Amino acid sequence: MPFVDRLPRRVTVVEVGPRDGLQNEAHPVPTDTKVAFIDRLAAVGLPVIEVTSFVSPTAVPQLADAEEVMRRVARRPGTRYLALVPNERGLDRALAAGCDAIALFTAASEAFSQANVRASIDETFQRFQPVVRRARAAGLWIRGYVSTAFHCPYSGPVDPELALSVTERLFALGCHEVALADTIGRATPREVDRLLALATRLFEPSLLALHFHDTAGLALANVMIGLDYGVTVFDASAGGLGGCPFAPGAPGNLATERLLALLDGLGIETGVDREAVATAVAELRRAVPGIGAHAR
Amino acid sequence: MPFVDRLPRRVTVVEVGPRDGLQNEAHPVPTDTKVAFIDRLAAVGLPVIEVTSFVSPTAVPQLADAEEVMRRVARRPGTRYLALVPNERGLDRALAAGCDAIALFTAASEAFSQANVRASIDETFQRFQPVVRRARAAGLWIRGYVSTAFHCPYSGPVDPELALSVTERLFALGCHEVALADTIGRATPREVDRLLALATRLFEPSLLALHFHDTAGLALANVMIGLDYGVTVFDASAGGLGGCPFAPGAPGNLATERLLALLDGLGIETGVDREAVATAVAELRRAVPGIGAHAR
Repeated sequence: MPFVDRLPRRVTVVEVGPRDGLQNEAHPVPTDTKVAFIDRLAAVGLPVIEVTSFVSPTAVPQLADAEEVMRRVARRPGTRYLALVPNERGLDRALAAGCDAIALFTAASEAFSQANVRASIDETFQRFQPVVRRARAAGLWIRGYVSTAFHCPYSGPVDPELALSVTERLFALGCHEVALADTIGRATPREVDRLLALATRLFEPSLLALHFHDTAGLALANVMIGLDYGVTVFDASAGGLGGCPFAPGAPGNLATERLLALLDGLGIETGVDREAVATAVAELRRAVPGIGAHAR
Repeated sequence: MPFVDRLPRRVTVVEVGPRDGLQNEAHPVPTDTKVAFIDRLAAVGLPVIEVTSFVSPTAVPQLADAEEVMRRVARRPGTRYLALVPNERGLDRALAAGCDAIALFTAASEAFSQANVRASIDETFQRFQPVVRRARAAGLWIRGYVSTAFHCPYSGPVDPELALSVTERLFALGCHEVALADTIGRATPREVDRLLALATRLFEPSLLALHFHDTAGLALANVMIGLDYGVTVFDASAGGLGGCPFAPGAPGNLATERLLALLDGLGIETGVDREAVATAVAELRRAVPGIGAHAR
């Protein structure tokens, strides 16, 4: 059977530039510029946009305007606006700002969890429990992230069983979707293949998302492996915003334009206008010169 | 079945940097530098190297030293040194220089054939006939190139039937291998899939080679499609040398390092040391500053 005939007909692109991207950009971005950028990304057809994070403003100054951004973005019907929530305090803020979709962050590597959120993996789940209970009671949609699902910048290669076990716990907790993330862009297609062979036996492929970084230039190859396993949700960052915090100067987040070039080239529908994404990025760069300089 | 288990265990990387790459680089490269570069590429394990072209020195001044390069490169046992031969005059020069493997150039698009070699496709085959007869009598190994197998810079998308018919004629003429080339880097994975679905029904996949350009960033995705069809020979250019003559400033030839990153990442053997290729390119760039600046 031709390769493309085995692949999903339609894919959901999750735009993480405004949060995962901007969080790792040194250039401060004014709130007006963020809101305009997010509104443009929604207008070009991106169905899910990770808008901001309700973490401590002192920890991530770039996202200190989380409430204002969340309140001001135009709520386009059919677009899901996602915000990161690290704990109950974050959930309070997210609910007050009118969020209807949140994302929780944990990791497959203990070393990364400790370095990233100063908590063990078990402790992140203890924090998540009341968050998920209240979020579900409020009718929110919930995504769980498994950071360092393949490699950890501190402890090296990650055992697939650890990523699978964290995934299982996130679903058991009540997440609607779990994103497996190659946080440092070191996953090889063989490693992606190995994890997905196991993961898609345990979980519905339609409930999984893949979050690749293009640091080693293999993000699109990894997306192709994901498609071959029937995964239909892929993260990307407009303009490749974000770079790679673990490899200064290298590409980080897979650029949305590159992901769309692949999906368009495979004849897979996304509902997103690739040229218009590039235009939105060009407008952001006009407003904030030098931003996203490390994109591939 | 896991994706990687369906793929070939071993792939032959054909290094085209010294010919296809340098031919499209504006920086003149001294003969000594070329010879040293080629010798290094052979030493790092590249099994086939396209060394030069016996075209008219006035048409391609960069390769006017074809005889000298061919005579001076160290003939590493097990390495195939390939030279382009456009006609009988070229074959005379190639034989005098001690070549034992040649490549013939034709196209799937009439417009490209006319622009590139000032001859119709039929006329290129008339030129090839005596070349192949004499080359086979002399025991040479022969590769045929089908340029613009997917897209033509002058006439647009190319009907797969045209590419297949030229491929068939090259095999019928006596070529040992035929390389399908995406000359301008516009082939989408879907188009590659379509052509290979047809081509691998007509020809043994092991007799086909694929030559991709990375202009649109999809070369590796296209390689993955090729691997899925059992193709085991892929062209690449060290350092992405060559750029794209049809899109100034854009990447052209797929960089050997990028191809190797994918193949290594899929666990496919090549016998080539990726880091050592990068070192060979760095040495060339020290000798000829500014060369290969458009690589991805």
